[in-house]
Amino acid sequence: MATDKPSLEKASVDSAKIRQMPSAVIRPASEEDISALLRLCNERRVPLTVRGAGTATTGAATPEKGGWVLDLSGWKHFELDTTAGWAYAQPGVILKDLQEAAEKTGWFYPPDPSSHAYCTVGGTLATNAGGLRAAKYGVTRDYVAALEGFMPTGEWVRWGLNLRKFASGYNIRDLWLGSEGTLGVITGAVLKLIPKPASRRTLLCGYPDEMTALAAVRRVQEARLVPSVLEFLDRQSVWCVEKFTGEAVSPGHPGLSYLLVEADGSESACKADASKLKKVLAMNAVVQREAADPVEAERLWMARRKCSPAMFLMGDTKLNEDVVVPWEKQAELLEYTLKLREETGLATPTFGHAADGNFHVHLMYDAKNPAQRKAAALGVGRLMEEVVRLGGAITGEHGIGLSKSPFLRLQHSEAEVAAMQRVKAAFDPNGILNPGKIFTPVEIWKTARAEVTFPWEHRR
Amino acid sequence: MATDKPSLEKASVDSAKIRQMPSAVIRPASEEDISALLRLCNERRVPLTVRGAGTATTGAATPEKGGWVLDLSGWKHFELDTTAGWAYAQPGVILKDLQEAAEKTGWFYPPDPSSHAYCTVGGTLATNAGGLRAAKYGVTRDYVAALEGFMPTGEWVRWGLNLRKFASGYNIRDLWLGSEGTLGVITGAVLKLIPKPASRRTLLCGYPDEMTALAAVRRVQEARLVPSVLEFLDRQSVWCVEKFTGEAVSPGHPGLSYLLVEADGSESACKADASKLKKVLAMNAVVQREAADPVEAERLWMARRKCSPAMFLMGDTKLNEDVVVPWEKQAELLEYTLKLREETGLATPTFGHAADGNFHVHLMYDAKNPAQRKAAALGVGRLMEEVVRLGGAITGEHGIGLSKSPFLRLQHSEAEVAAMQRVKAAFDPNGILNPGKIFTPVEIWKTARAEVTFPWEHRR
Repeated sequence: MATDKPSLEKASVDSAKIRQMPSAVIRPASEEDISALLRLCNERRVPLTVRGAGTATTGAATPEKGGWVLDLSGWKHFELDTTAGWAYAQPGVILKDLQEAAEKTGWFYPPDPSSHAYCTVGGTLATNAGGLRAAKYGVTRDYVAALEGFMPTGEWVRWGLNLRKFASGYNIRDLWLGSEGTLGVITGAVLKLIPKPASRRTLLCGYPDEMTALAAVRRVQEARLVPSVLEFLDRQSVWCVEKFTGEAVSPGHPGLSYLLVEADGSESACKADASKLKKVLAMNAVVQREAADPVEAERLWMARRKCSPAMFLMGDTKLNEDVVVPWEKQAELLEYTLKLREETGLATPTFGHAADGNFHVHLMYDAKNPAQRKAAALGVGRLMEEVVRLGGAITGEHGIGLSKSPFLRLQHSEAEVAAMQRVKAAFDPNGILNPGKIFTPVEIWKTARAEVTFPWEHRR
Repeated sequence: MATDKPSLEKASVDSAKIRQMPSAVIRPASEEDISALLRLCNERRVPLTVRGAGTATTGAATPEKGGWVLDLSGWKHFELDTTAGWAYAQPGVILKDLQEAAEKTGWFYPPDPSSHAYCTVGGTLATNAGGLRAAKYGVTRDYVAALEGFMPTGEWVRWGLNLRKFASGYNIRDLWLGSEGTLGVITGAVLKLIPKPASRRTLLCGYPDEMTALAAVRRVQEARLVPSVLEFLDRQSVWCVEKFTGEAVSPGHPGLSYLLVEADGSESACKADASKLKKVLAMNAVVQREAADPVEAERLWMARRKCSPAMFLMGDTKLNEDVVVPWEKQAELLEYTLKLREETGLATPTFGHAADGNFHVHLMYDAKNPAQRKAAALGVGRLMEEVVRLGGAITGEHGIGLSKSPFLRLQHSEAEVAAMQRVKAAFDPNGILNPGKIFTPVEIWKTARAEVTFPWEHRR
């Protein structure tokens, strides 16, 4: 148990930079420690918040009600069963370490949030993380065979086994997934691996504007092609990248909207898919480039990778809203981001995973400017209303945490929220595990952000 | 509302043939009817059991505590979104109707329990049905984007949307899946479709015994091949089929153990996979046949299709235990079925989905013979203990219902069962929805079976 200031400060905040100080940080040595800790927290009614690396974008790892933080980032052990294709992982494993170890043995773990070099497996389970490959390969949920750990009241439990079918009793494994550390403490997971695709091809296509780019996305869908990556970048994002790097993404053609597309699979399937994709993507494309090798592919990825850091040219603080809309509403959503820019006076750069309709709409503002703070608050509320009106989801991969909590009831009816809260009470009668999240509205734009820079921010 | 004897009798039983008479059958005309019915049942504490076709093998659809039956088999409407790849289905849709409609438009709905020509979509959701293609394509859960319907207390709710990512609030969609009609009434589902594989190849390989057949399964796995079908038949099953049909599965080679194998995908991928599979499967094979066309493929499927009806040559009643074991324990499980045959004196024909370790172990007995009934009861208990000892699941796709209820606590700890029961109480405080299932042990082999023959039995 640590109570020194650096430990407490580190445990007080995640990527959302909403700081609440805990009174102690516990780094457990054993499962018995965790069970005993949970029992003590119940006895004394001490709030307990579990954390890994803290890459959560929603404040889900902030100890909102103080109390203690259970830091599982040291639980880093994992093993691969390279015959059956399973990974057995503790929650503190860095996702990229697991991905790379699997790939070295010819296996593949597809969930791939952009924080993969920093985020822990535990965090990906707590948020049911998605990422860039979801339209073809699904999200974290699609690769979890079993979870084990502790009930909020301290009992050890296991949900599922290292099996591809399991139909005994209620599916509490999937209820734990994405429950943001409010229904249990995960200490181990059995993850499914799939054979690593032998081949990959990368294309970058530039279009004069968002609507022609999204029309190409639509043609991909109508042709029933399933690329492993289909990333969209609007012109605001590209403007940032080009200013940030000092050069046009496509020399001689600044200011385009882009699709970054990958096909993968066996060599022959991949070649066939890439050729079909090129045909479908060509209409209205100003530029179309195919990478000849992995080095060139990395160059094509540059614009996408620089989006996040480059965006801070438009404001020192960002609201990153990972909304999802049905395919047929993508153009409407993009039009709305432009309307929102006019209404709020704030930049609304948008990029995202177009193949599954999951867009990251950003509202960039200067946190020290009260008028901009107010405009951001107004803007995020209107955006969420519009997304729900379009039949979409207010979050596709980040979860609710604190930052989406004011909008939970836009997405869900009172009956739905009541059912969720009854589940919470059934698991955690004393409400000790990660209290203050999901259900209690917190308007984070009213909160001063912690002055901290995380290694995964790559601001330059 | 029907109270005539034929309606009540039809609603009293499912494939497990454990009969309990309801006092009324309700075929609702609208969602309002369902909500009003649920409120009435809560007010008057009337048990309510939802049913579709009644193909459940566990007694999950038997109205165990009497009361009323909510028959949704008439809710048969479905629509396909052939651009986005969604099916919107009511619970009474016959699975095969949906599969065939999808395939006509070039889409594919993979979950494929053997009852697919009779079972309803609602039943596949209630049991999270699996089937033959699960190792490559997953189970029902992997194709459900959203569910809507009613809480046991009558409130309309929706869990998820027609989106490929959704991270808002708790994942109650997946908690409903496989909860056997105890946590809510499903009135609609959004199901994911995938592009239909262009090509399929079918192989049948005969081996001298179970161990050489399972060694071939193991080699498929070690080669990281992912066939779409990999069905195993033990020699007891094959003996039944050969006696039932009056001819050897492979002329001149009676009494083999078999693997039925399919590869699917693009024409080139499928050809490449089939060629690799043939090589890997060849060792120790007495016969190896590849279908030249769909007609011949259907002929190769004959042995597998005749297994279920042929088995009744060994006893008039069957306990069909859909157990799952990890890959490395398959041989041990098969050896145990032979030991069990010696110990009980009952036939234990076993076939199943070897690629995901999901075997159907049958105990065949004469229900009118008290000694055999007793032997069956003893045998099923020992089998379940052995499966759990091997690190397996007591059910991979049928669920618990009544028939597995005595073994729930072999699979799950008291803390796990307690958590499930608290979930039940949180959803259904008056315990009106499908009471008596999952949690209360019922020894079905002590019960006389209803004298009824279902169309899906094909006893011929």
